[in-house]
Amino acid sequence: MPLADRVVRDLEAIFGPRRVSTRAVDLDTYARDMWPRLLLGYRAGEAVEPRPDVIVWPEHVREVVAAVKLAREHRIPIVPYGGGSGVCGGAVPVRGGITIDTKRMQALRAVHGDDMTCDVEAGLNGERFERELARRGFTFGHFPSSIYCSTVGGWVATRAAGQLSTKYGKVEDRVAGLSIVTGRGELIETDGPNRALRGPSWNQLLLGSEGTLGVITSARLRVSPAPQLRVFRGFEVDDVATGALAIRRVLQKGLRPAVVRLYDELDTLINAFGHDDVDEADAPGGLAPRPPIETGALPALPNLGVPGRQAERPREVGMIERLRDVVRGKGLKHGAMTAALGQSEMMNKLFGAVEKVARRGCRLIIGLEGARIRTEIEAALAFAELEAAGARDRGEEPGWAWLRHRYAVSYRMSPVFSGGAFVDTMEVAASWDKLMDLYHSVRDAIGRHALVMAHLSHGYADGCSIYFTFVGTTPEKDGPAAARRKYDAIWRDGLEATTRVGGTISHHHGVGLLKAPYMASEHREAMAIFQAAKTSFDPDGIMNPGKMGLR
Amino acid sequence: MPLADRVVRDLEAIFGPRRVSTRAVDLDTYARDMWPRLLLGYRAGEAVEPRPDVIVWPEHVREVVAAVKLAREHRIPIVPYGGGSGVCGGAVPVRGGITIDTKRMQALRAVHGDDMTCDVEAGLNGERFERELARRGFTFGHFPSSIYCSTVGGWVATRAAGQLSTKYGKVEDRVAGLSIVTGRGELIETDGPNRALRGPSWNQLLLGSEGTLGVITSARLRVSPAPQLRVFRGFEVDDVATGALAIRRVLQKGLRPAVVRLYDELDTLINAFGHDDVDEADAPGGLAPRPPIETGALPALPNLGVPGRQAERPREVGMIERLRDVVRGKGLKHGAMTAALGQSEMMNKLFGAVEKVARRGCRLIIGLEGARIRTEIEAALAFAELEAAGARDRGEEPGWAWLRHRYAVSYRMSPVFSGGAFVDTMEVAASWDKLMDLYHSVRDAIGRHALVMAHLSHGYADGCSIYFTFVGTTPEKDGPAAARRKYDAIWRDGLEATTRVGGTISHHHGVGLLKAPYMASEHREAMAIFQAAKTSFDPDGIMNPGKMGLR
Repeated sequence: MPLADRVVRDLEAIFGPRRVSTRAVDLDTYARDMWPRLLLGYRAGEAVEPRPDVIVWPEHVREVVAAVKLAREHRIPIVPYGGGSGVCGGAVPVRGGITIDTKRMQALRAVHGDDMTCDVEAGLNGERFERELARRGFTFGHFPSSIYCSTVGGWVATRAAGQLSTKYGKVEDRVAGLSIVTGRGELIETDGPNRALRGPSWNQLLLGSEGTLGVITSARLRVSPAPQLRVFRGFEVDDVATGALAIRRVLQKGLRPAVVRLYDELDTLINAFGHDDVDEADAPGGLAPRPPIETGALPALPNLGVPGRQAERPREVGMIERLRDVVRGKGLKHGAMTAALGQSEMMNKLFGAVEKVARRGCRLIIGLEGARIRTEIEAALAFAELEAAGARDRGEEPGWAWLRHRYAVSYRMSPVFSGGAFVDTMEVAASWDKLMDLYHSVRDAIGRHALVMAHLSHGYADGCSIYFTFVGTTPEKDGPAAARRKYDAIWRDGLEATTRVGGTISHHHGVGLLKAPYMASEHREAMAIFQAAKTSFDPDGIMNPGKMGLR
Repeated sequence: MPLADRVVRDLEAIFGPRRVSTRAVDLDTYARDMWPRLLLGYRAGEAVEPRPDVIVWPEHVREVVAAVKLAREHRIPIVPYGGGSGVCGGAVPVRGGITIDTKRMQALRAVHGDDMTCDVEAGLNGERFERELARRGFTFGHFPSSIYCSTVGGWVATRAAGQLSTKYGKVEDRVAGLSIVTGRGELIETDGPNRALRGPSWNQLLLGSEGTLGVITSARLRVSPAPQLRVFRGFEVDDVATGALAIRRVLQKGLRPAVVRLYDELDTLINAFGHDDVDEADAPGGLAPRPPIETGALPALPNLGVPGRQAERPREVGMIERLRDVVRGKGLKHGAMTAALGQSEMMNKLFGAVEKVARRGCRLIIGLEGARIRTEIEAALAFAELEAAGARDRGEEPGWAWLRHRYAVSYRMSPVFSGGAFVDTMEVAASWDKLMDLYHSVRDAIGRHALVMAHLSHGYADGCSIYFTFVGTTPEKDGPAAARRKYDAIWRDGLEATTRVGGTISHHHGVGLLKAPYMASEHREAMAIFQAAKTSFDPDGIMNPGKMGLR
């Protein structure tokens, strides 16, 4: 019997035949995540590869242990797989092997109300997790746009950020303990007694390891009380620099809105005005039911009013809408999209001209939630800071519109690909003193190849991330290889510009294959620490090989 | 030339003769930190040992690199040394070797106001650090009672907590990056770009490693704006359980006072009423000058008034003061102290009886600081929570008294030792659901051997630490060995009780020699991670050997 068959037989002994698959449709499915670069080839009909050799669906940690021990015995790679929503190729099985889908380990085992923690298995879907917590009066506060198709384990493995991270923190700020099956096949639990603070903390070494040290099987996470009150509001600033300073003022005063984000001029035109295509209710699973929340009964601030959607439309509405359709790949044939986007520099200039005529400035969205009185007070203080920094209050409606459509952007990517173009996002970060340098440098670098827009969405006292969205195209006749070349050039130039100004190459999308080549230059000598952990946890190098710049 | 002489000669080539010492007085000084167990022998005239073979005082990281490389070549241990204020024997050179005193690397290299971070060398004294920041309008917010005699590097190496940690966090919550010279003699810097969040974080592996992985030479730390307003206040609750619930309510509402602490009945009698012996101004260095801060002009809450010190005194004042004198070793000869404390169970009962007669309940201190409006509001909300939980407002004076005397407790230990007794503190922690179990179990365990009191001083949404103070004695004629036996029995029983109820053995004093035997049972399989890091960072085992349960 060949090795592969023997391994499959042994896996069936562990999992039973129904939780082991070598069917082609499964191998194709688990060959990829949502990394846009992979879509370029698939769209052109290229074969799906590399693929895993076999998929397994454990229901208990002891099955994971058994699978890892078996894989270790035969030196077969293992790739942990959650929701498959990653955008950096982290779940691609570059050397084949066994892909372990965690989604059948999905129990919310306990919610410890007294301590405000919960114990949850890695495979639980994000939206279901949040819904279960809401029923008990809590929230984890983690709302990535992938919430309907990502898992708790995936969040933890990649150091994910949700849209309300300014209040609730990134995932790594909320982890009290982890259970992980290492590449040695040993179960390690770091969730000892709470606040077990003697000696080094292991959690932060495991968080963000993206399957290269082991399979994360469960986590103890900190939860927060479900909010009593939400307050959302839109502001407008003259330009990105003014808006960035306004956000910095709010955060450095110690105020913690749930979200504060600033769209640059183009992102404002494309995304911050009018969401007529995808509503939250359209997303799979619908909106998670939540306990009733009052919707911000703050009095209107002076000098504003709450303009309706019509009042938001400039006279140039027709031109803007046509441009928006291009970017969203909406109602355009491949040829039209290619023609429009083929000259990216011209497109960027065209948008610049429209922006100028429209004099729209930049949209700033702020939302606060929590206990009633505190939220009202924090909102009043935050709004005062924004106005002192030159932001103009545009009323509640733009804020609520953002909240309603906050998951929509992820569902806009498909039509762009269908239209023959590609779209991706680059989330870099820097300290405040370098932030405008970062914005201009990366925008220029990407703008040479593609249409580019950006928003600031995760701010801190010491700095902020910038989320660039770019839409590019190559002539259809040049095939996927040409598209990949342009895609790679965008990333190379964008990250090179990031490094040049002293920014960091990733904020919350992880590393995967996409950013693996940049790990060494970013971490320098400290990569030795990661490599040492790798050697110790996974001496045979079977855990998600080829990722994160590890040997 | 013998090895030792050759090494000293080589060290002199690195440091120059004036920054290398083998003088007996220096070897004695650097043989110990403030671990009370060591004082038992010294008091009885035992020889000071083990001692280091040589002390060096680097002024630059390259000298640290050279010293570590030299030590590695000859397989000589290295012990990093900061202020020497540790209370767990972490700086004791159990195998001799080279002690590296970091105090001449003490530059505050930069304060990055835009990003609210600073770059500081490891050897800077805590009080000077805070004073330098205050001049620039910032605070690190870390105020351990050792602030006059501890260093930034010591804080970072031990995961220290300051008295205002509820607002500002423990040290590990404020570290953006570290520079460390590993046991291989390599300099690793983890302070890349801010919010460099791709992949695992190394900082949390190095924080709390207590010199076993390398010498921490500098840190990038997050700073906060100096507070505009401080509000301090005292409350009274019937018992510890009521007070614990009150603190939990405040913290689980998301309120973040700078400090909220609860003294049990005995600690209230001893420490929370009347501080007539040591004032802050008596401490070496005096009080750090700070920018002018308004002193909380909140209106008095209903049902209180601000009683002066006289009104605080119960009729049983004479008896209480005599008991307090015993505990403080004040004005008592060795014989009197021994007689009083010799029957610890009786003493604990005696205090219990006095408490009951005095019906004083437990003192709760709360302090808030920060931006003016937010602090006033947060204070009002916090006070309302405390009162809703049954706490009675006792006015501002007890709060300010606590603040004035917050460093005094550390300077009360000497007279106890001079009086023939010993005193130490045990800072354990647990989740809220286990906290009262922890309190009663540890109190009973220690109370069999010594007079014991406790306060809750560092709370979180998910749990709280309890800080036990115990005063014990053995007959003088039995010598230091008997005192050590009793001391060891207290720790063994206290930590055993902690583990039994699911608490953690340390909150912020570190591990050192004292708690090293408990590391394996606390971390279980996860110790493999620490051991792997140790093997990688320090393959020859020269870095602070014998500590933290590492091989």
